[in-house]
Amino acid sequence: MTELKNDTFLRALLRQPVAYTPVWMMRQAGRYLPEYRATRARAGSFMDLCQHPELACEVTLQPLERFPLDAAILFSDILTVPDAMGLGLYFAEGEGPHFERPVRDEADIRALRVPDMEEDLGYVLDAVSLIRRELGGRVPLIGFSGSPWTLATYMVEGGSAKTFARSKAMMFDRPELMHALLGVLADAVTAYLNAQVARGAQALMIFDTWGGVLSPRDYREFSLAYMSRIVRGLTREAEGRRVPVILFTKGGGQWLQHMAGSGCDALGVDWTKDLADARRIVGDRVALQGNLDPCVLYASPARVRVEVERVLASYGQGHGHVFNLGHGIHPDVEPDRAAALVAAVHELSPPYHLPAAAD
Amino acid sequence: MTELKNDTFLRALLRQPVAYTPVWMMRQAGRYLPEYRATRARAGSFMDLCQHPELACEVTLQPLERFPLDAAILFSDILTVPDAMGLGLYFAEGEGPHFERPVRDEADIRALRVPDMEEDLGYVLDAVSLIRRELGGRVPLIGFSGSPWTLATYMVEGGSAKTFARSKAMMFDRPELMHALLGVLADAVTAYLNAQVARGAQALMIFDTWGGVLSPRDYREFSLAYMSRIVRGLTREAEGRRVPVILFTKGGGQWLQHMAGSGCDALGVDWTKDLADARRIVGDRVALQGNLDPCVLYASPARVRVEVERVLASYGQGHGHVFNLGHGIHPDVEPDRAAALVAAVHELSPPYHLPAAAD
Repeated sequence: MTELKNDTFLRALLRQPVAYTPVWMMRQAGRYLPEYRATRARAGSFMDLCQHPELACEVTLQPLERFPLDAAILFSDILTVPDAMGLGLYFAEGEGPHFERPVRDEADIRALRVPDMEEDLGYVLDAVSLIRRELGGRVPLIGFSGSPWTLATYMVEGGSAKTFARSKAMMFDRPELMHALLGVLADAVTAYLNAQVARGAQALMIFDTWGGVLSPRDYREFSLAYMSRIVRGLTREAEGRRVPVILFTKGGGQWLQHMAGSGCDALGVDWTKDLADARRIVGDRVALQGNLDPCVLYASPARVRVEVERVLASYGQGHGHVFNLGHGIHPDVEPDRAAALVAAVHELSPPYHLPAAAD
Repeated sequence: MTELKNDTFLRALLRQPVAYTPVWMMRQAGRYLPEYRATRARAGSFMDLCQHPELACEVTLQPLERFPLDAAILFSDILTVPDAMGLGLYFAEGEGPHFERPVRDEADIRALRVPDMEEDLGYVLDAVSLIRRELGGRVPLIGFSGSPWTLATYMVEGGSAKTFARSKAMMFDRPELMHALLGVLADAVTAYLNAQVARGAQALMIFDTWGGVLSPRDYREFSLAYMSRIVRGLTREAEGRRVPVILFTKGGGQWLQHMAGSGCDALGVDWTKDLADARRIVGDRVALQGNLDPCVLYASPARVRVEVERVLASYGQGHGHVFNLGHGIHPDVEPDRAAALVAAVHELSPPYHLPAAAD
């Protein structure tokens, strides 16, 4: 493998000294970029983009051509694993994801198996290999998966949910069934992430998009427990380096102390939590990634810079911070705002990493 | 006025001794009740329901006929105030609220005036008077309003928002404009709530549905500051009793310590916060209202009872707790689940209020 030229992101995730705060953006390869929309139009559907490694590679690299980002993230969908389990993922025009065969009862759940990674998810792994080669060591590549709870909600609801009626009814009335579903998903996600590392992913992120709709008790039992189980099963070293793992529960700001005990290296934090508070809560156990309100990118570039400075100041002196949005970039944002964000982080963050300030 | 026969709810909000935990449910008068759907069908539109005091009264009382609830809440919409300001509220079939004339620029905002309560919102006040008379002192009547920030988002977006692009862009780029809008709304809401008290409302609640989409700093500056200003301007005594005020920010569990300093009597808490933690944070400053996950009502009545007990145990011994859902009841819930909830609260809560345990 080519030598990694910029390891700032990996070092920050491990709370090692860095000269500036590294930055990437959730959904940095996406609809806000005209070049993404062009590739997508050429590809046909969103799933075509995901399933053709050369297209997935193309869109993964697009934001890196525009902005000096410190990490690339595999372009894929969080629902590839349930699709590989036979649920039949499809996207209706202008709508969210749907499954042809949702999981509704005990028989459906007992029939689920961990998919064969090469056979059923080879298209994702081929994309990882190709992106890694095309990156040529510029920045590290992040692999990812949805969390078991998040995947389970889509599988039980048959798509996006407003109230989580079916998945929560199963959780409350048939907890043993929900646990069986989460168990097979945890095994599948573990295998999936390890396969991504085997093909070249240099850091991993678990997206727990819907953990925040649970009560604290239910969150620990039905979401965090399975993310922790995955973390314990992950390959943590590859190519002679540690492979850092980031957990991100949207709306999980109240549970950071529990998440920090999962064995992961870093926590994603959304904008409803001050990073100063988050840092006090997690202490020196994990690094933090976040947490600019993505709606700041609807404001002027000058204002973006002010808000970037506030996030940097909120984290404060010392290492262990990866700059990011608190959620994915919105599709109707102007790309020049993303440029302003990345430039501001690189220009304004070095004073927070001066040797005297290093921890 | 008729004497109040059941003041458990008012006493609990003021942290006074009670024999059991009082209970009501957000949106208890609503679509999950067949009798509500029948009245609504007879009325025509949702706005017809709100604008005819006899219909608003009828649906307000419906849940009390079914369940031994400890409070009634005025049936109305949170957007009556912007409508009275001339924005033209309407509901398209199967969709959320819309405004014909959204507020987009400085001229729009400078033109806004506090509406005349009797002239522009008399239909709400007449409903308050009528409901109060028809209640005959059974339980107290709660008046309510949306928070300035919540109303502002609808006014600027022109309806429900997904990303809050316009309202947040105004907040970030033109904070002085957003403050002007919030200021006139705070004055209007203060007058509106005071008018409800003058007509017979015995407790008040401010619904800050969208405060939780803000960062902690922006929440304090653009939402909480205006709710605090309203609380300072409210009539706090009527008919020889204190009129308690409840603040509820959906997703505001992380900011309870700040909310508790607003001058209100109680805080609504959603289900993402343990009541034990919430109680530790607010101390003896305010009572707490909440916080069952409304999705528990998709489970069996037996399970509803188990989860009710968990919420009661989480709050623990002593007074100052009003049982409620952490958000409005979902329209597709079976009414027998609501019955199970109310019964369980009344049956299981007395041990938490034994004299030895009272604080």
